[in-house]
Amino acid sequence: MRAVVMRNNRLVVDDVPVPTPGPGEVLVKTLACGICGTDLHALRFAEALVGGSRSSGGMFAIDPHRDIVMGHEFCAEVLDYGPGTRKRFKPGTRVCSTPSLSRSAGDEGIGYSSEHPGGFAEMMRLTESNLLEVPDELSTEVAAMTEPMAVGYHAVLKAQLKRGDRSLVIGCGPVGLSVIAALKLTRAEPILAADLSPRRRELAIEMGADMVVDPKEKSPYEIFRTGASARRAAVVFECVGVPGMIDDVMFNAPRDAKIIVAGLCMERDNMYPLSGISKELNLQFVLGYSGYEFADAFRNIRKGKLRVQPLITGKVGVEGVAKAFVELGSSGHHGKILVEPWRS
Amino acid sequence: MRAVVMRNNRLVVDDVPVPTPGPGEVLVKTLACGICGTDLHALRFAEALVGGSRSSGGMFAIDPHRDIVMGHEFCAEVLDYGPGTRKRFKPGTRVCSTPSLSRSAGDEGIGYSSEHPGGFAEMMRLTESNLLEVPDELSTEVAAMTEPMAVGYHAVLKAQLKRGDRSLVIGCGPVGLSVIAALKLTRAEPILAADLSPRRRELAIEMGADMVVDPKEKSPYEIFRTGASARRAAVVFECVGVPGMIDDVMFNAPRDAKIIVAGLCMERDNMYPLSGISKELNLQFVLGYSGYEFADAFRNIRKGKLRVQPLITGKVGVEGVAKAFVELGSSGHHGKILVEPWRS
Repeated sequence: MRAVVMRNNRLVVDDVPVPTPGPGEVLVKTLACGICGTDLHALRFAEALVGGSRSSGGMFAIDPHRDIVMGHEFCAEVLDYGPGTRKRFKPGTRVCSTPSLSRSAGDEGIGYSSEHPGGFAEMMRLTESNLLEVPDELSTEVAAMTEPMAVGYHAVLKAQLKRGDRSLVIGCGPVGLSVIAALKLTRAEPILAADLSPRRRELAIEMGADMVVDPKEKSPYEIFRTGASARRAAVVFECVGVPGMIDDVMFNAPRDAKIIVAGLCMERDNMYPLSGISKELNLQFVLGYSGYEFADAFRNIRKGKLRVQPLITGKVGVEGVAKAFVELGSSGHHGKILVEPWRS
Repeated sequence: MRAVVMRNNRLVVDDVPVPTPGPGEVLVKTLACGICGTDLHALRFAEALVGGSRSSGGMFAIDPHRDIVMGHEFCAEVLDYGPGTRKRFKPGTRVCSTPSLSRSAGDEGIGYSSEHPGGFAEMMRLTESNLLEVPDELSTEVAAMTEPMAVGYHAVLKAQLKRGDRSLVIGCGPVGLSVIAALKLTRAEPILAADLSPRRRELAIEMGADMVVDPKEKSPYEIFRTGASARRAAVVFECVGVPGMIDDVMFNAPRDAKIIVAGLCMERDNMYPLSGISKELNLQFVLGYSGYEFADAFRNIRKGKLRVQPLITGKVGVEGVAKAFVELGSSGHHGKILVEPWRS
């Protein structure tokens, strides 16, 4: 089958073997799969990812010296079943799933693995019991966004916001936009968002931000210093994930603020503990979501409560993926680009 | 009056003017005053403290180019009253107080100020309404430890421990020892403590630690990886406060751990966000205590619930303070050294 392969830190289009579904597993056709910022990171920092993962018993158990087919934000169509399955869904049924296989030895990731190709290939194998059926009224592209929306949903749950808490989202890439959508489910308002890119500030408004700021023109932290809400609790979502950002948020955050670190900074970083100490800041690092949160995000998307559509700003076939990676990494023009591996 | 003065980043003994109590204030004789790790920091990093404070609207509004009489952990004796006081306590009554003056313009610190000399001088002025009377059965030296005990008490409250949570105290200097004593008030057990110094590990046991570890011989984090308690929630108290410690705790802490940063690291620091991200760690920076917590710590000391005595390992007069600073900064032999400024 055709796939985008990460090989020697580059992306190439090649033919790879169709995966065989094991016991309890199902073979699916990838209909659409989003490109995630973590995919960009993995391509650039594969060694660091592996090192960081090892150091912390984490989740990126990849071997960067072997072929990897990435892609973990997908909507797919049931093709065939492996042994020991209940065959809950007819072939042709559209499904979503967390990007992991539930195997007897434990969960195994899809998309950051040399064993289990992800959604940048024409076909994948998934665990039957993880499948969520996509109803007719939900478009494939929106359903594919369940995974990134679950990330923002989880980050917002971790913040344990209370009514009246003020929130500030730093960075309006896909993670920040997903956080904004999830913040709309809470009673925390106003939602302020900051990004250097005018396009991403537009997207933030479309996703539900009440106010956007260009940090070059005005400090987004002003909102915490002035006005009637200056005494309300403050939550800052760090959704940029480059060195220096955590330090910057800590320096600017108001006293007693909670900082949700949702950006995935892969490099060593620097900070000034005294900023945290003197203001008694709280830093909550977040990653991923639980299976329950994934299903809940999916339910909220289905009900139209989690806004998704503005997030999707482009589509490519496998031949367009390498270029899409470059564009996503260098410009502030995009939300999500979806890969449609079946496209010729 | 005689005082230990911080002047040009050195400690000298000199005569300074007796402070005049303002409205609502009282003049007291210092009976005993502990030397705090922050005092050592202030001597060494005065400029950094001021810079860090400015950057974050923090609490060390000191001018390192003017004389400062430090000392904020004290027990004192009422001498005389300023105007507009209720004269609640007879002269001779022993009292404790938070090290701050409540003035109309706001609270002003005692001991990190060129205006308000602290307990390394024979006399201080305090705010009458902040005074807590020391009962006869409580020794002066133990009462003087209310302030450092309030620091540990606050740190433990911030951790919001639940019954059965496991706790690990990294560093058994005064902050770590105070945390250990406060942990004994909770139902979190076992309390594990780690320090390189055998003397401080002894003190940790005396203060109530269930187990102590020399981190050179065994990783204190082992406790979180093995045994029946391996699935229980973990709280790590970072009580060392030198660069690299936060990174080390983050690297070693188990998944979902809460890290209470109680150590006062004054320098820029380095960390690997991926350690925090991949394990969804929570970092709570803490500093100080509220007036309520101070009074509560005092109550618990009075009732014998907060163990204090082992913490006190030395006493000096004003002439011995400079040497005590050197000893506290260079050896692991001490808990607290008390200054008795009335000593000849």
